[in-house]
Amino acid sequence: MATNQDDPAQDDLAHAPFDVRSKMASGLPGPAPAWTGSLRFSFVGGNNDAPSVPVGGLAEAAVHALNRHGSALATYNLGDNPQGYGPLREFLAAQLAAEASLPIGSHEVLVVSGSLQALDLVIETFVAPGDVVVAEQATYGGMLSRLRRAGAAVVPAELDDDGIVPQALDALLGRLADEGRLPKLIYTIPTVQNPTGSVMPVERRRLVLDVARRWGVVIFEDDCYADLMWQGVRPPAIAALAREGSDVGRVVYCGSFSKSIAPALRVGFMVAEPPVMSRLVALKDDAGTGAVEQMLLAEYCSAHFVDHVRELRNTLGSKCAAMRDAVDTHFGARSAVAGKLGGPVQVTDPKGGIFVWLTFPAGVDTARYLAPAASRGIQFNEGAAWSVDRAWGARRMRLCFGSLSIEDIHEGVAALAQVIVSNEQAPTDPEPPGCGSLSCP
Amino acid sequence: MATNQDDPAQDDLAHAPFDVRSKMASGLPGPAPAWTGSLRFSFVGGNNDAPSVPVGGLAEAAVHALNRHGSALATYNLGDNPQGYGPLREFLAAQLAAEASLPIGSHEVLVVSGSLQALDLVIETFVAPGDVVVAEQATYGGMLSRLRRAGAAVVPAELDDDGIVPQALDALLGRLADEGRLPKLIYTIPTVQNPTGSVMPVERRRLVLDVARRWGVVIFEDDCYADLMWQGVRPPAIAALAREGSDVGRVVYCGSFSKSIAPALRVGFMVAEPPVMSRLVALKDDAGTGAVEQMLLAEYCSAHFVDHVRELRNTLGSKCAAMRDAVDTHFGARSAVAGKLGGPVQVTDPKGGIFVWLTFPAGVDTARYLAPAASRGIQFNEGAAWSVDRAWGARRMRLCFGSLSIEDIHEGVAALAQVIVSNEQAPTDPEPPGCGSLSCP
Repeated sequence: MATNQDDPAQDDLAHAPFDVRSKMASGLPGPAPAWTGSLRFSFVGGNNDAPSVPVGGLAEAAVHALNRHGSALATYNLGDNPQGYGPLREFLAAQLAAEASLPIGSHEVLVVSGSLQALDLVIETFVAPGDVVVAEQATYGGMLSRLRRAGAAVVPAELDDDGIVPQALDALLGRLADEGRLPKLIYTIPTVQNPTGSVMPVERRRLVLDVARRWGVVIFEDDCYADLMWQGVRPPAIAALAREGSDVGRVVYCGSFSKSIAPALRVGFMVAEPPVMSRLVALKDDAGTGAVEQMLLAEYCSAHFVDHVRELRNTLGSKCAAMRDAVDTHFGARSAVAGKLGGPVQVTDPKGGIFVWLTFPAGVDTARYLAPAASRGIQFNEGAAWSVDRAWGARRMRLCFGSLSIEDIHEGVAALAQVIVSNEQAPTDPEPPGCGSLSCP
Repeated sequence: MATNQDDPAQDDLAHAPFDVRSKMASGLPGPAPAWTGSLRFSFVGGNNDAPSVPVGGLAEAAVHALNRHGSALATYNLGDNPQGYGPLREFLAAQLAAEASLPIGSHEVLVVSGSLQALDLVIETFVAPGDVVVAEQATYGGMLSRLRRAGAAVVPAELDDDGIVPQALDALLGRLADEGRLPKLIYTIPTVQNPTGSVMPVERRRLVLDVARRWGVVIFEDDCYADLMWQGVRPPAIAALAREGSDVGRVVYCGSFSKSIAPALRVGFMVAEPPVMSRLVALKDDAGTGAVEQMLLAEYCSAHFVDHVRELRNTLGSKCAAMRDAVDTHFGARSAVAGKLGGPVQVTDPKGGIFVWLTFPAGVDTARYLAPAASRGIQFNEGAAWSVDRAWGARRMRLCFGSLSIEDIHEGVAALAQVIVSNEQAPTDPEPPGCGSLSCP
């Protein structure tokens, strides 16, 4: 290609058609489709009950916080510790001590830009391409996609109604050790497991922790939904139990305000001991998490968190009951779906949260319903996306109920059943009967 | 190691001392030091004038926005397009059309979590390890560190008082092409260049664009400081000029509210055409940028942005004049520093922004003053961190003045001069005299 160093603007420029895609890195995710609006029956996403957002309280908190500290916005991190706004970390330390038996100071809290950033930071800290990570056999799809993008080999841990089965975990780690593939991390959601809604009892937590100790593995405890428990008493965090021992850094913990206050606020938090915290802080190179959102959360939550969350749990519990009723009506033993599929759909009885997890008869692949459901205004998470082993998850489905009205839950589940009945062919690819080890009351 | 699959809690656990660091990925940045508070004379960081933060206006905007749309916070992205809050994208499209001659619709705007996320997304889209990226020889240190972490080879483009020298850029790309190392990207800050404060004239922008076209390279235009111009008229963005041609995707553009409103708000923005925008959206997997901050910016800026920024520019212009006075007094030809170093320190005359760029006599390494200055409560950016070629940058220094009072600017610069005089040894590692191609009025 000819160049002219005296006048680069001259007309001998090579004007071959420019294709910017040829300049992009290889291996990118595909282009995002154009946004076409949300569907009416959106049973996906960690969305919440809109009337429960404490709008007035947040507005009042914003005014107070801005009037008190607003000029500090002129400085990154409000001129404060990059771990986050002090009063918010103090609230969190007190809250976690009270609710999760986690006796920490605010210096052990890192405020992050949503718990997704916590996942990113933990992966970046611990996981190199080729590393093995253990995750619950059904787990948060956003973590699975992140782990895979990081080049991790994800191995499933068996679940039952109480979460990870410790004996099976121990055996799994033994096998992996024999293969020279001891995992770096165990990723667990022990409190309101996503998607099964189980809560791991304290005795089970100790056993899982002991297994991690035996094999020298770090636990990443994702407690995002823990504030939304409506059945039973919240057990101590695994991170709390780990502090009874002496192995500093064994458990990295994260939580979020997305489920307790609102997901469009991008504020989550992590708890880690110094050798890990210092790395997380070094890796969090985003110049801080949004300060106004931190300030208004600190102001609002210090006064109202407990009352707000109590009321929210009641609302979500009612929605969950409606969802289970609707599933029973439209997917239960006497339903047209059961007739068509050769058996009923089983549904979890979550102890909290915003979703149920359905197990269809063997041979069903719920992903096949995605497109016909979307054309009827219905979205759901196909089980494969929420499962380490996609084939194991194929006949499963997650339905979120947080953001729909009780009327729309009934109507949407009925419409989904119609979609399935009218689209279903004879079952293919039969699996062994039964519902595996998942909670299927 | 013995295992017992029946009872993992039994006492034969291997309690070798646990070192969590042994589980971490290799190549991590070092641990962050404990935070010890900010220094009084903090001449670093893109911090702004605290009294200029429009606290009352932001509080009012927060109340209006929350009362109007607050319950939408229950849904990720407010249930809206993942590109960001509609009214904010509409404000930005109108603002960029008016101020940067960039005729776009709101569908071409992506709101991001601070412009650092824009840098991350562009790097992820275009840069693979080993790729060559051209950056201005003095440039934003945070971009340099990100590019290096991504495995890019960063090559410097020569600057003069009007920004990138097009003929030199053309020659550089020719040489790189001959070596089979044609860059993916040219990273430029054409409007209030960081750190030199220059503004690239429109004719120069066309020449640089033509060079990028000739060699088939993408331009990443970082316009973060463009709202803070106080000398001259803001030229059209390079992204605007590119639209006169037909090469879709040639220029990716970013800006920020950090400099115009407040840096602790984590809201920036990008402009890109569809083939690039669709990739940026796919890679932005953070579940959205903080919605409250987007809402209050949309509300505040629609009514007050132009007036606010006009006043802020005046304030910053006065601080800049104070900084240049102080540098002239304490580092100029008759100063003790000049006597000690064998010549005066040259300082830029920025056309906007919040920093000046100093060039010390040959042989000086400003990094040597970091520790003694810190012990006197003074922080500055050593030139090497803001330079593609660290050796070239060693005798340079960036001083930010946005967040200090005029009194503290004078006092801090005087104190820095004292530190230098009392710590300076005879110059070592002499460089050729002169100040290179940088603006040194």
